This record gives sequence, structure tokens and C-alpha cells, in this order.
Amino acid sequence: MTGRTDSVAGRRIFVTGGAGFIGSALVDRLVAGGAHVTVYDTLSLGRREFLAGAIATGRCTLIEADLLDAGRIPPAIAGHDAAFHLAANSDISLGRAETDRDLRQGTVATYNVLDAMRQQGIVDVVLASTSAVYGEHVPQPTREDAGPLLPISLYGASKLASEALVSAFAHNFGLRGWIFRFANVVGGRATHGAVFDFIRKLRHTPGELPVLGDGRQSKPYLFVDDCVDGMLFGWRHATEPMNVFNLAVDGATSVADIAGIVRAEMGLADARVTFSGGARGWPGDVSQVRLDPSKLAALGWRARRTSHDAIRDGVRAALRDPSFV
Amino acid sequence: MTGRTDSVAGRRIFVTGGAGFIGSALVDRLVAGGAHVTVYDTLSLGRREFLAGAIATGRCTLIEADLLDAGRIPPAIAGHDAAFHLAANSDISLGRAETDRDLRQGTVATYNVLDAMRQQGIVDVVLASTSAVYGEHVPQPTREDAGPLLPISLYGASKLASEALVSAFAHNFGLRGWIFRFANVVGGRATHGAVFDFIRKLRHTPGELPVLGDGRQSKPYLFVDDCVDGMLFGWRHATEPMNVFNLAVDGATSVADIAGIVRAEMGLADARVTFSGGARGWPGDVSQVRLDPSKLAALGWRARRTSHDAIRDGVRAALRDPSFV
Repeated sequence: MTGRTDSVAGRRIFVTGGAGFIGSALVDRLVAGGAHVTVYDTLSLGRREFLAGAIATGRCTLIEADLLDAGRIPPAIAGHDAAFHLAANSDISLGRAETDRDLRQGTVATYNVLDAMRQQGIVDVVLASTSAVYGEHVPQPTREDAGPLLPISLYGASKLASEALVSAFAHNFGLRGWIFRFANVVGGRATHGAVFDFIRKLRHTPGELPVLGDGRQSKPYLFVDDCVDGMLFGWRHATEPMNVFNLAVDGATSVADIAGIVRAEMGLADARVTFSGGARGWPGDVSQVRLDPSKLAALGWRARRTSHDAIRDGVRAALRDPSFV
Repeated sequence: MTGRTDSVAGRRIFVTGGAGFIGSALVDRLVAGGAHVTVYDTLSLGRREFLAGAIATGRCTLIEADLLDAGRIPPAIAGHDAAFHLAANSDISLGRAETDRDLRQGTVATYNVLDAMRQQGIVDVVLASTSAVYGEHVPQPTREDAGPLLPISLYGASKLASEALVSAFAHNFGLRGWIFRFANVVGGRATHGAVFDFIRKLRHTPGELPVLGDGRQSKPYLFVDDCVDGMLFGWRHATEPMNVFNLAVDGATSVADIAGIVRAEMGLADARVTFSGGARGWPGDVSQVRLDPSKLAALGWRARRTSHDAIRDGVRAALRDPSFV
């Protein structure tokens, strides 16, 4: 599938959140394919070092700025061929303590990007969305046409709001939208999530691994390279004015299994796992997620790794990563 | 069904947008049932005279303020038993000219109401939503579990965002939500819409009625009394933490039929109708809407009027209304 990246050669791509975990993997891939990339990032979750390789090629520029500083976006985005909008508060549990965080960093930031695109006549927008838009009232495995969409986290609410804005801007102002509802994404530069937490905890206290919930929460996991690959594939091959895809794998991995994989990979199989109990890890957590990936599969794309393999490779990448904190 | 209003006797109800078309009809009904009502309204679309009767009873207080002035809401909402959130930019076509209007007056205003409820420990929130959340990619007649939800207007996008916020606040902070996706609502105090436009145009130029689109756009219409009745019924009889209902009728009325009814009721049957052409009236307009009202019907509620009867009674009420501009 590497041939596809040739298609971005010479194209100018604007990436919000491009210094973050998924964003920087996307930027590496775009730059490797010959694109010219502008990253717009606050560096609050993202990190400059994640872009070191891309910047060294001379084809990646970092603008350290906030999407809430709306006036800065139009001049920054002008002249690009497409925008990938990945910036967001990516840590779902934070939204509960600071209730306007997702509204500002999610919904309002997305509006600002879209309105800047409208002003500058930029057509293609790719939105990183999430399975959290589905909430808990939909059939599983969940298809893209499932409803009602009643997210249980403020993060999920802001992503559904962002999807709706992409749709309305596409219809009214001639934009074309690609919405990817991500499974849980794992990989080397992750800044949160179960794999990240478990590694941190075991490095701090190698004999014990306290786990939120009863361990039976289970979700599909996607390796970050597959996530980037799927986005680029969908952007190239789906041609409606609005395109909505689950970006996921069949099946799921339980939190207890993740704990087992992390312990095994760290050589700490004897660490004692304790569960805090309860069906979900925290109040905005959807404990059982199954996503139907067949819509994107019908276009010809499948993730290379299963959910379990994604977890294993995610743990290995994190353990190898010198920047892991 | 009038017996149901007894249930609000003595209850303290907060109504945003309560001086507007639907809001003031709700307030009249609540006050008639013995409730104590606080209206929070900017009076930008709403009008003080719509509340004259309610205020004269001594059981309705008007706070003239903006929901974007977030600090004013918590003291205003404190001590109420429920909030009905109807305030919004209700004129869909305006959102296209001023692209942040629906974001501010819809999404952000809804967040401010919900966060004030959280701060003050108020549990019940009833949201006026719209069939516009469905967009154009859903089966018809449309059920509440239809998807994907890809609104084509910024108004629809802001209502979908508001629904998502209600859901997330309900889940995280113990609120209970009732979301009603309205059909097109008609009645005496309407401030926009096809009936309103046609009467205005014919009063200005009695011999000619120019109509946007090809006249074949058709949607279900609900009389405002039925709308208020359905909301109060659903609030009392639906008991999930989150309740989503179409508030609608079977069938639909075409714009050409509306033009005919308005001409007949005004005694201007000879006025020449001209169509601007095209399938939709304006870019954010969903031209064909059919809503399935059976979910609320299963609880025991049906609108008293058909779509056609609602249009006829809406025209008559508007023609009788001394405040019609």
C-alpha cells in the first residue's frame, strides 16, 4: 500500500494537531510521500521533537499557534490543497473536570478551521472523529449509519458537533469532507490511554498494576500506522461530497488482556493486577465497543494488524520510544 | 389531554426563548396549568407582548438577557424544577450569511444552559431540536434511530451539537434529557417560515406570490399547540435518562399546497404563483422531509391536526394575530 503515498507528492497539506501522537505519524507519512506540510499546533499535547524528522527534510513547517486564535488560521491555511484536522483534547476523561474544554478545543476550534477554509477557498477537509460519537444506544458491531447518536462523553459530543459542522460547511460552501471515526489508536508517541497508563504504572511500581474498572471493558484497537494509512486511503478513494467511515478493525481487546500483554512485553508477568471494579473505567467511558469496518473494506482497505497485534506492537513501540514519559 | 397540565401546578419552570413563537405558547400553557415560569430571552426574535397574558397572571417573570452572558444564567436558573431550552436562531437561512450565528446562539448557548444546570443541581432539561439534524442521508419516513446524521444547515449542525451536549451532560452529571425533533411548526406568533412569508408577500403585493424553489418541497407541519402538548406529554411519560422523539405528524404538505391554502384563506385565490425553480428553497433547506411519529405515539400521544390542517389553522391564526408584522 506504500505506493499510495506517491499521490501526495508536491501537494500542500495543512495538518492541525500535527505535532501530536497521530498527527505526527501522519506528517511523517505525508513528508515521506513528497508532500509539503504545514503543522498548526499549540504544542500543549503535541511535541516539537515528534516533528524533528519531518522538519529536517525541509518539507514541514511548524506554526505554534492556537486554533482558538481564529484570526491566525486564514493566512496560515491559505494556499493549501487540503486540511487534515486532528487537533483536539484527546484525553476523554479530562472533559469532565473542565466542562468547556471539549467545546472550545473541539467544536469551536473545528468551526474556526472550517470557516478559514471557506474564506480561503480550500475544499478538502479530513476530520479525525471517534467511535465515541456513537455512545451506548447503537447496535454492535456498529455501522456508520447507526443511530441515535448519543455520546456519553463531552469529547464524543464535541466530535459529533464537529462532524455536523463539516457536513453543513460541505453542503453550504462547497467543501468536501472525509470523517473517520477512529477506534482506539495505539503506537509509539501516545500520550494517554490504557497502554500508556499501564507502562507508566509498571515503571513506577513494577510489582503491581492497578486497573480502572473490572477489566472486562473491551474495544477495538488500531495501530497508528494503520490509522494514517486508512485516512489517506479513504481520502483518495471515497468521492462523495461527504464521506463517513469507521476506521477500525473487527473484534476487540479487553483491558485485562491489555494488562497481560503489557506485563509480558515488559517482562513483568508476575506483577499483580488489581481491578477498581465497575463496568467502566470512568464516567465518560463506553465500556463495550465493536465497530464494523466493512464500509472502508468495501473500497479496498483493511488494517494490517488485528486489535491484539496492534496492542502488542503499540506496547513495543512505546517501550522503544526514548521520548516516552 | 388538558388534564396533563395539572401536573405542572406549583412547579417552577425555566424557559429559554420563552418570549418567542413556540416558547410563548409553552409559557401560556404552563402558566394556565399553575406553574411558575421564568422566561430568559434576549427579545431579539421573541417579543414582550407575546408574554403579556402570562405576566398578567403573576406567575411569569421575564429576564431580558443573553445566554451568551454565561454568568447571568446560574443565578437565574437556581431553584427551578426543570428547564425548557428553546432559545436559538430559528431562521435556518440566516446561518449561511453569518456563519458563527448558530455556533454561538445554538451550541455555545446550550452549553451555557447545561453547565448552569450542573452548577445549580437542576436535573430535567427539555431541548427543542429539529428534523434538520437528519440531513438528507436517512431513510424516510425517518425514525429517531436513523443515521448517519449529516445536517446540511448550520442550524441543523448546532442542534445536533446541542443534542450531543445534553446527552453528555446527562451521562456525566446526572441530568435527564428530553430531546424533541420538531417538524416545521406553524401558528399565530411565527416569525419566519413559508406561511409567514406568503402572508407578508400577499399583503404587500396581493396579485402575485413568488415562491422559492419549484414548489414540490414538502414537509410535515405541526400546529404550535400540538407541539407544546407533545413536549409536555413526552416530558411526563418518557422516563429514560435520555429520551429522543420526533415531534411530528404522518405525511407532509408541499410548498405549492401551502401557497394554495394561504391564497384561499386570504381570499386571494386568483393571485399568480411563480416559482423560482430548483428542488430546494435555499441551500440549507432539506426539500423532502418525512418523519415517523410512532415512537411518541407508542407512549400514547398523537397530534390533533394533520399537516394540512396545521397549515390551515396556522394561516388563520396568523391572519387573526394583531401582532403579525
